[in-house]
Amino acid sequence: MGTKHEHEYLTNNQQRTTNKGGEIMLAIGEKINVISRKIGAAMKAKDPKPIQELAIAQVNAGANMLDVNTGPATKGGPELMEWLVKTIQEVVDVPLSLDTTNPKAVEAGLKVHKGQALINSASGQKERLESMLPLAKKYDAKIIGLTMTEKGIPRDANERASIAVDIITAMAEYEVHLENLYLDPLLLPIGVAQQQTMEAIEAVRLFKQLHDPPLKTVVGLSNISNGVPAQVKPILDRTLLAMLMTVGLDAAILDPLDEELMKTLKTAQVFRNEILYCHSYLD
Amino acid sequence: MGTKHEHEYLTNNQQRTTNKGGEIMLAIGEKINVISRKIGAAMKAKDPKPIQELAIAQVNAGANMLDVNTGPATKGGPELMEWLVKTIQEVVDVPLSLDTTNPKAVEAGLKVHKGQALINSASGQKERLESMLPLAKKYDAKIIGLTMTEKGIPRDANERASIAVDIITAMAEYEVHLENLYLDPLLLPIGVAQQQTMEAIEAVRLFKQLHDPPLKTVVGLSNISNGVPAQVKPILDRTLLAMLMTVGLDAAILDPLDEELMKTLKTAQVFRNEILYCHSYLD
Repeated sequence: MGTKHEHEYLTNNQQRTTNKGGEIMLAIGEKINVISRKIGAAMKAKDPKPIQELAIAQVNAGANMLDVNTGPATKGGPELMEWLVKTIQEVVDVPLSLDTTNPKAVEAGLKVHKGQALINSASGQKERLESMLPLAKKYDAKIIGLTMTEKGIPRDANERASIAVDIITAMAEYEVHLENLYLDPLLLPIGVAQQQTMEAIEAVRLFKQLHDPPLKTVVGLSNISNGVPAQVKPILDRTLLAMLMTVGLDAAILDPLDEELMKTLKTAQVFRNEILYCHSYLD
Repeated sequence: MGTKHEHEYLTNNQQRTTNKGGEIMLAIGEKINVISRKIGAAMKAKDPKPIQELAIAQVNAGANMLDVNTGPATKGGPELMEWLVKTIQEVVDVPLSLDTTNPKAVEAGLKVHKGQALINSASGQKERLESMLPLAKKYDAKIIGLTMTEKGIPRDANERASIAVDIITAMAEYEVHLENLYLDPLLLPIGVAQQQTMEAIEAVRLFKQLHDPPLKTVVGLSNISNGVPAQVKPILDRTLLAMLMTVGLDAAILDPLDEELMKTLKTAQVFRNEILYCHSYLD
């Protein structure tokens, strides 16, 4: 996808449909990330153009939320996140996922964010819960609950569900609405921990059964293909997305500029009865 | 895929892996079908060449079983099936799925078949059970149990599971081993019965829970895209295959000449830990 004129970006986001929980399936664009050389340089120089172009391109490609990843952002993090939120929401009207471990930077972003932001992320780590949950309450933000703890990576689906229960308990303690929680089973790279993929899929299925109405779930889809050759990444990503959507996935942080991936997302939504099938559903 | 030399077909089928039940995931090539104009004519003229070429091409593309669909085959059915089985097994050494409603034609095929054939299909219809189950026992054949009855199409996953239980009961009556049964939830065309797709997926999940060790499951994958435009069929087929494999599908009758579909099959097998991941797993 190339750059679009500003007046175009609103039209593309209109055909939105809901999943069984009555919520929109979130396709969270992952491209605005400090680790990209171009975007990293633009963040450093506070140059809006590359960032705004990438925001518009992702929304035009079907993203209905954008992740803004500044990394740890220990130095100058709050100013940077504030600038990014303003700069991006100047050109697209989707909510943002504020992706940094620095709570001060998250709060600076939340203060200026229009609409309901997503905090990416809290986890089963005590320190992260204590720093992020008060912000979710104060700003009525959505929040990702990553099912890992100080002890490291969970071994299987059951351990993920057990950490999810701890996160749910902490949500209640901090008076954050459970409808704002997105549980993340933690996808691991296929080349590192192949046997963990089915555990993460099973964890999503378990998460959906922990509460009534069902809690929402999210994954960082590209994690699966971390470190794999570029020609293998797309098929890994789209096949896994279809598999996760089978068990009720509600949101994915992904590359919306991957056209086949977005077609797979739409097709799985057809099978889930969230989009009405017609022969031209992909157009 | 084009035609291959006869000596090539054996090598391609060697990288075979097993699913959790310790059985090979069956990719059953669907191309030898009387409704194809070319194949229909070859069947009528008893011309082996087009049929053998298509058999070799499918096996080279990754099929480890081939469906042989002669339709109702009321007239001359037994002679035709006998000729087809011999003609096909002359050039490929995979088992065949004998796909006709004519039990005499099925038996004629079973008599000359090398290895363990698959009878496609029995169903919850009394007449089909009575005609096909004795053949499955006599020839120790695998058999597809389609979860539909005289009453028509099942309404949901639970109705499919209930018909499956009746089929299982009949299997015991006719002394057919349950390990030879492949339960089929009956996929319906997306354009006709969109809301039935998730019911069929859920049915596969339920089928896997009906018995210990779990029973095997199969779908006629192309049913989903019956009547859809040619450019939409591939993405419907491959997305649904990934979704069905998430809940434990063991076999699919499909188009093995669709390369992206076969890559999706292999990728889902990687996620299911049936194929060891390496960067070149698709080569």
